[in-house]
Amino acid sequence: MDLLSIKNPTFLKGMSNAELEELSADIRTFLIESLANSGGHIGPNLGVVELTVALHKVFDSPKDKFLWDVGHQSYVHKLLTGRGAEFDTLRQYKGLCGFPKRNESEHDVWETGHSSTSLSGAMGMAAARDIKGTDEYILPIIGDGALTGGMALEALNHIGDEKKDMIVILNDNEMSIAPNVGAIHTMLGRLRTAGKYQWVKDELEYLFKRIPAVGGKLAATAERIKDSLKYLLVSGMFFEEMGFTYLGPVDGHSYEDLFENLEYAKKTKGPVLLHVITKKGKGYKPAESDKIGTWHGTGPYKIDTGDFVKPTAAAPSWSGLVSETVRKLAREDERIVAITPAMPVGSKLEGFAKEFPERMFDVGIAEQHAATMAAGLATQDMKPFLAIYSTFLQRAYDQVLHDICRQNLNVFIGIDRAGLVGADGETHQGVFDIAFMRHMPNMVLMMPKDENEGQHMVNTAIQYDDGPIAMRFPRGNGLGVKMDEQLKTIPIGSWEVLRPGKDAVILTFGTTIKMALQAAEELQKEGKSIRVVNARFIKPLDEGMLNEILSEGLPILTIEEAVLQGGFGSIVLEYIHDKKASHIKVERMGIPDEFIEHGSVDALLEEIGLTKTQVAETLRDLLPAAPRKGIGS
Amino acid sequence: MDLLSIKNPTFLKGMSNAELEELSADIRTFLIESLANSGGHIGPNLGVVELTVALHKVFDSPKDKFLWDVGHQSYVHKLLTGRGAEFDTLRQYKGLCGFPKRNESEHDVWETGHSSTSLSGAMGMAAARDIKGTDEYILPIIGDGALTGGMALEALNHIGDEKKDMIVILNDNEMSIAPNVGAIHTMLGRLRTAGKYQWVKDELEYLFKRIPAVGGKLAATAERIKDSLKYLLVSGMFFEEMGFTYLGPVDGHSYEDLFENLEYAKKTKGPVLLHVITKKGKGYKPAESDKIGTWHGTGPYKIDTGDFVKPTAAAPSWSGLVSETVRKLAREDERIVAITPAMPVGSKLEGFAKEFPERMFDVGIAEQHAATMAAGLATQDMKPFLAIYSTFLQRAYDQVLHDICRQNLNVFIGIDRAGLVGADGETHQGVFDIAFMRHMPNMVLMMPKDENEGQHMVNTAIQYDDGPIAMRFPRGNGLGVKMDEQLKTIPIGSWEVLRPGKDAVILTFGTTIKMALQAAEELQKEGKSIRVVNARFIKPLDEGMLNEILSEGLPILTIEEAVLQGGFGSIVLEYIHDKKASHIKVERMGIPDEFIEHGSVDALLEEIGLTKTQVAETLRDLLPAAPRKGIGS
Repeated sequence: MDLLSIKNPTFLKGMSNAELEELSADIRTFLIESLANSGGHIGPNLGVVELTVALHKVFDSPKDKFLWDVGHQSYVHKLLTGRGAEFDTLRQYKGLCGFPKRNESEHDVWETGHSSTSLSGAMGMAAARDIKGTDEYILPIIGDGALTGGMALEALNHIGDEKKDMIVILNDNEMSIAPNVGAIHTMLGRLRTAGKYQWVKDELEYLFKRIPAVGGKLAATAERIKDSLKYLLVSGMFFEEMGFTYLGPVDGHSYEDLFENLEYAKKTKGPVLLHVITKKGKGYKPAESDKIGTWHGTGPYKIDTGDFVKPTAAAPSWSGLVSETVRKLAREDERIVAITPAMPVGSKLEGFAKEFPERMFDVGIAEQHAATMAAGLATQDMKPFLAIYSTFLQRAYDQVLHDICRQNLNVFIGIDRAGLVGADGETHQGVFDIAFMRHMPNMVLMMPKDENEGQHMVNTAIQYDDGPIAMRFPRGNGLGVKMDEQLKTIPIGSWEVLRPGKDAVILTFGTTIKMALQAAEELQKEGKSIRVVNARFIKPLDEGMLNEILSEGLPILTIEEAVLQGGFGSIVLEYIHDKKASHIKVERMGIPDEFIEHGSVDALLEEIGLTKTQVAETLRDLLPAAPRKGIGS
Repeated sequence: MDLLSIKNPTFLKGMSNAELEELSADIRTFLIESLANSGGHIGPNLGVVELTVALHKVFDSPKDKFLWDVGHQSYVHKLLTGRGAEFDTLRQYKGLCGFPKRNESEHDVWETGHSSTSLSGAMGMAAARDIKGTDEYILPIIGDGALTGGMALEALNHIGDEKKDMIVILNDNEMSIAPNVGAIHTMLGRLRTAGKYQWVKDELEYLFKRIPAVGGKLAATAERIKDSLKYLLVSGMFFEEMGFTYLGPVDGHSYEDLFENLEYAKKTKGPVLLHVITKKGKGYKPAESDKIGTWHGTGPYKIDTGDFVKPTAAAPSWSGLVSETVRKLAREDERIVAITPAMPVGSKLEGFAKEFPERMFDVGIAEQHAATMAAGLATQDMKPFLAIYSTFLQRAYDQVLHDICRQNLNVFIGIDRAGLVGADGETHQGVFDIAFMRHMPNMVLMMPKDENEGQHMVNTAIQYDDGPIAMRFPRGNGLGVKMDEQLKTIPIGSWEVLRPGKDAVILTFGTTIKMALQAAEELQKEGKSIRVVNARFIKPLDEGMLNEILSEGLPILTIEEAVLQGGFGSIVLEYIHDKKASHIKVERMGIPDEFIEHGSVDALLEEIGLTKTQVAETLRDLLPAAPRKGIGS
C-alpha cells in the first residue's frame, strides 16, 4: 500500500492477518530504502514492525498512550500516524525527529531519548487516569537493555506495589545497543528458552495433582506451594515478585500470538508485563546478522551490500584515540580498569576488552552504578577510566559529586560526545557537562585542541594523583594532526597561546578553536591583532596567563560549544570580578538557554551563531573603535 | 566495660556470647545517654548493635571492608573502632561526623550520606581485589529502604552477573526513614513471615521425594523443577534470580544466629545476600515503639520520658508551611498531586496524605522515578508537587532536565533543606541546586524571604502554567511573620526593594536577607546608604529592576547561601556583561569551592565568612573611597 498516504492508524482495524503481513513487508521495504539515504536506527525499527502494527490495531492511540522508551524504535509508529512523507527529512535540521516529539503528533505523548524513563512516565499517566476516572490504556514499550537502568527498576517496584492497570511491553531483542549484560539479562535468557508460560503452568498443575496427600507440618508447606503456584515457574518470577502479571514470552513477529496476548493483557487487571521476543534488524540480512550493535543506528548505507556510505576518515575517531591510549597505558600500569555503561562499541573499547578482559567492565545501561563503581575501585588504589557520553553522564550527576568528588578519588572520566552531536538531537547534545561539573569541588576538567594533545591529556589524567579528572572530547574524528610517539603530561591548569595578538584575546578550547583562529586571521586583514588561547583547562583556569591578560587590559572573548549559563565564559567572568578587574570587557559566545534540536552540527552552529563570521563580528564589536594600545604592549 | 578505652575491635575475638550480650547492653546504654545530649540517628544505631559487634568479631576490619549504606547506622562501628571518647562532639563543628569519614579512621573505607551507593562501591572494591589477587571480604550493609534506590538495583544486577565474592548484609528493619513502600518491600515482608530459608528448603526436599516417578514430557518438567529447587521457595527468589545466594532471614539480635550465618556466608562462593531482621530503636522503649520514623534521627531528648528537648518553635516549619499550603490549594484544585521519595514525615506531608490519600504518592527512596513520574502526571494536565530535599534532588538531575524541563511540563518542585543544613554535614548541604538548575532551559527558580511570601510563592507555583517551577526553602522554621489570609500570586521574575539606598545595592534572597539588612543598618551609621533587594527570583532575573540599578551605576553585592561557582552571583555577572555594563563593580558572597562539613549552621556561616560583619566589611570595600554620587541619584 501507499504508506505515504496514511493519515492515522484507524485503517488497521479492518485488516486481516494476511493483509497485515503484506503491510509489514511494505513497511520494511520502506524503512530499508528510506534509511539507506538518511541513516537512522534501522535495526531497532525493523524489529518492532509487527509489534507496532499490532499495538495500533488493538489499542486506540492517542486515547491509549504508547510510551516508547529511549524512542529510537518509534519510526513505524511515526509511519502509522501519518508522518511517512517526512521520512526523507529524518534527523535533519528542521526535519522529522528520530525520537518521539510531542509537537510532531498527538500520537507522541511522551518524549524520550535517554533510556529507562517510560515506566515512570507511565506511572504518572496511570495515576492521573485513576484520579480523573478515565479509562485509557497505558503502554510503555521498553527494551531489555533499558530495563536494567535503575530508574526503570525503581518504577517497576512502585508500579507493582500500587497495582496500577498498565501493560508494560518488554521488547526483548537480546541486545540494547551492545549485547546486554547483567543478571536480569541472564534471567530473560532463561525465560526465552523456557518456552511458553502457559504450557509450563499446565504441566505443573498436572504434576501437582500427583503429589500424594500430606498432613501436618508438611501439609502447610504443600499448601503454601499451591498458593504460590505462580512462583513455581522458572519463568516470570522476577516480575511476579515485583507485583506484575507476567505474560509470555511471545513471538513478536507473529500477529496471531501478539493479538492473543495483547487482548488477554487488555482484560487483565493490575500491571501486566508482556514479554515479546523480537529480532533486531528483522527482514534485512546485514542488520539481522549483526552481533555487536553495528546496525543499531547507522549513517546511509548501500541496500544491496549493506556497506556503509561514509567518507573515509582522515583521522582516528576521538573515542578510538582515547580508548586506545588508555589501552596502551594499561600495558604498563596494572591499576587501569575501564568501565562503560553499555557503550563498548560507541566508546571503542573493544580493543581494551580483548586485551584486558578482566579489567574491563560493561555494566549495562547503569550510569549511576558505573560512576560509583569507579569510585569503589579508586578507593583501592586502582585507576578507573569511566568512558561515558556527556549526555548520559547527566544520569550520574550525584554519583560524580557525592561519591567521586567528595571522596576526592582518582577517577578519570572520559566525557565522549561533548558538544553538539547533530542528528540525535536535543536529548543527546553534550552541552551541559561544563555547567554541571564546574561547581564540583576537586574536579579537574579539560578539553584538548586536537588528537595529539588528546593523547597527552589521557596520559596526564592517568598520571594525575590528586583526585578526579575529566576530559571532554567531541563526537567524530580528530583533525588528522601528526601524533607524537612519546606520551607527555600537560601541567594541570596550563593554557597555551596558539596565536599571538595584542588587541584582544580569545579564550576557547576544543572544537571552537578552529573558528577562533579563522576569525583572528580575518581580523588580521583589518589590521587587528587577535591573540588566540587554547584554554584547555576549564577547571582550574590558568591563573598566571589570565592575570597577565588582565594586566594588559585586553578585551576578552570566550567561545564554547556548551551552554553559556554557568559555563566557561561565566567562570572567566567570576575570576575577573574576584580579581577586581571588572573594567575588562568580556564577551561570551556559546549555546543559549534553550534545548538545541537535531540537525547537522554545522547547521546548528549556524543557527546559534557559533561561526567564524559571527566570531569576527563579535570581535569587531569588542574592540575599541579607535586603534588602542594595551597596557604592556 | 569502659567503652571509651576501646582502641580497635580485636578485643571482641575472645569474647563469649554471654560477654557480648553484656557488651551490647553497655553499648545501648552509652548510645542512649550520649545521644540524649547530642542528638543523632539513635533508632538505626540501636537496631544494629549485635549486627555490628558480630561483623567485627567474625571479620577483620580494616582488611575486610564494611560499607555502611547511607552511613547513619555507623555509630556502633565508630565506637568499636576507638572513637567512643569523641561522641560528645558528635555532629558538631569539627567534631565526630555522623557518617563514615575516611579521614576519621582506617576502618571507614567508604563515605556515605546519600542512599544506595554501597553496592556499587563494593563492586568496585571486589573488582579491585580480584585484579590484585588479594583475599579480603567485602561487606556492604544496606537497609531495606536503600535497596529500592535505582542504583542499588543496578548494582545488584551487575554483581549477580559478575558472580563476585561479596556478602551483602540486608539490614531489614521494615522501615527506612518512613515506613517503606514498594513491591520489593512487600516481598521482604513475605520473606520475614515465611520463616527460615533452610527450614523451608528441607521441607521441600522431603516433599519432592514423595512425587511419584514420572515419564516423558512430564519428566522433563519434574527435572526442571528439581534443577531449580531454589526457585521453589517463597523466599529469596528475587535475590536468587539476581544471581545471589540468599541466606536468612536471621534474627539480627541473636548472636548465635548471626555467627552461624556469617560463618556460612564466609564459606560461600559468589555473591551472598544475608537477610538480617533488626528492630529500629531496640532496647529503648520510646524509639522501639516508633511507627513513623520520629526516632530515626532526633535532637536531644530526655532519657526517662523520651520527650524531645527542643525550643518551642515560634513559627511554622518551612516544610509544614509549604505542604500545608499545597494541601489548602488541593481542596480547590483537583489536579494537585503530591509526590515524595520516602520523606512524608520530613516533608510534613502527613496532613496532605490523610486528606487526599489517592493523590499522594510516597515512592520510596527513588528520586529519579519521583521526578519522572511527576513529568508523566503533568503530561495529563495534573499539577504535581514534587517535595524533595535539595541534596537528594541531585539524584534526579537528568530527570529534571531531560523529562521535566525538556518537555516543559508544569511540575512544581519544592526544594526543601536548601542551603546549609548543619549537623548532617557535607553529604546533606543543599548548596548545589542553584548551580545545577540555573542552566536548565524553561526552569523558573525562586526562594521566598519569609513564610508569608512563601505561601504566596507556593500559590504562584501552582497557578503557573508555562512549565517547571521550583521554590527553594531552608531547613527549620519560618521567621514568625504575620500570615496573609488570602493567597496571592507573585509576578514571575519580580524582585522587591526591602530597603532603599543610593550608594550600593545588595541582591540576595532567602536566609541571607537578614544579614544583608543588618549590614545595611550598620553602614547607615557610617553615613552609607545601602539598598537591599529581595532577589526572590533566581531565574528569571528581574531585568527591569536590574537595568535600573545598572543605569544608576551602583556597585552590587550578591549574597547567597549556595555555591559561588555558577551560582546567583554568577548569573548577575553574566547579565551585566551581556548588557555591556562591565564597568559595574560586583562582589559575590557565598559558599566557596569546597565541601562544607558538619556543624551548626551559624558556626559554618562564620567559617565561610557569611556573616553580617563580613557583609558590612565587603560593602565598605565595594564602596568608593570618597563620597560619590550615583548616576541618577
